[in-house]
Amino acid sequence: MQLFIGNQNYSTWSLRAWLIFAQFDLDVEVIKLKLCSDEFYKTLADITPTAQVPTLVNDDVTVWDSLAILEYVNETFLNGRAWPSDLVERAKARALACEMHSGFLDLRNELPMNIRARRKVTLSQGALMDVARIDAIWSEQEERYPGEWLFGEWSIADAMYAPVALRCLTYGIELSERARAYQQKVLASESLRQWLQEASLENDIVAKDEAGEVV
Amino acid sequence: MQLFIGNQNYSTWSLRAWLIFAQFDLDVEVIKLKLCSDEFYKTLADITPTAQVPTLVNDDVTVWDSLAILEYVNETFLNGRAWPSDLVERAKARALACEMHSGFLDLRNELPMNIRARRKVTLSQGALMDVARIDAIWSEQEERYPGEWLFGEWSIADAMYAPVALRCLTYGIELSERARAYQQKVLASESLRQWLQEASLENDIVAKDEAGEVV
Repeated sequence: MQLFIGNQNYSTWSLRAWLIFAQFDLDVEVIKLKLCSDEFYKTLADITPTAQVPTLVNDDVTVWDSLAILEYVNETFLNGRAWPSDLVERAKARALACEMHSGFLDLRNELPMNIRARRKVTLSQGALMDVARIDAIWSEQEERYPGEWLFGEWSIADAMYAPVALRCLTYGIELSERARAYQQKVLASESLRQWLQEASLENDIVAKDEAGEVV
Repeated sequence: MQLFIGNQNYSTWSLRAWLIFAQFDLDVEVIKLKLCSDEFYKTLADITPTAQVPTLVNDDVTVWDSLAILEYVNETFLNGRAWPSDLVERAKARALACEMHSGFLDLRNELPMNIRARRKVTLSQGALMDVARIDAIWSEQEERYPGEWLFGEWSIADAMYAPVALRCLTYGIELSERARAYQQKVLASESLRQWLQEASLENDIVAKDEAGEVV
């Protein structure tokens, strides 16, 4: 089974899909392609219809979207345990995961993930609302499950929000106390620290993801 | 169980969630709120964290995203039969559904659903690529399942692409022969005809979704 990802410094969707393999110690060959490189497009052109990362290939199965990969891995290898087992909680976790999958466009545009950088940006009203919404989500769930993942046990919802923990670091976004507690949990987790360590070995620059003023 | 939707003339995400109830004849109270109205925001403020439609409320479960609603209904009332039963096919169907859920932004921006209108627009390069990609998806699946839904039986993937069949009508988008065959199947389906009939009773105008030149 092969997981194609982009630069670990920049690729948020790659991180989301990669996390489920790391969290559950699943065996996968990770193939990293430099974003925007000729090799990137050449390699993916033969594999996916959209030439995007992450893409998962497992024998005759090809999945070219992060959430679809997470659902596939959950069903195929985890017997469903990457979603909360309780129906009400699972519905909420899916709504939160989907909210990130299709939304937060201002935050995603204005605060590209750039792990190694420390920057200052002036946020639009839309991005400020996105930050406030994420703070509210994290705070509410931290109150319900103090010191734990968003739904107690790690779930796909945590995968979807993980890159935001890193964005808040890069751009010095202030969080409320409970939201910050969740962010710190994400940053201290073994899987994320492995990603950060691997990202730290990269030195390629992707110009479109270099936002803000150096601080 | 209550499904909150927006104007049927305009709201694509409402249509996607509504379709699964119509296709499987599931009992639900549909509550239609006029997009952008005071009543819309007032009603949703008490129910959802994002004040968006569609939102599903079933006793203590609230789901505020179309794909999450589709997954919830599929798991809770349909025993999984709104996805293909075959693992390879299901992975592909989820990837296609997710591709629509998070993508096709140019098409979605430039060709807002507006069922009653017939308009002419000049598409950007990005929107043209979106149309070409959808044509390729529909054609490929129509070749695999001639005359049937994208994966033979109706699935959540069909819900996700249904609004595009209507957009192609509104804006006179030309499709290849196979893609057009799929579009015609969507348009002729009983569930979509019910939606169109209900939409035809509306006369509210949502200015931001009035794109293009009248033809």
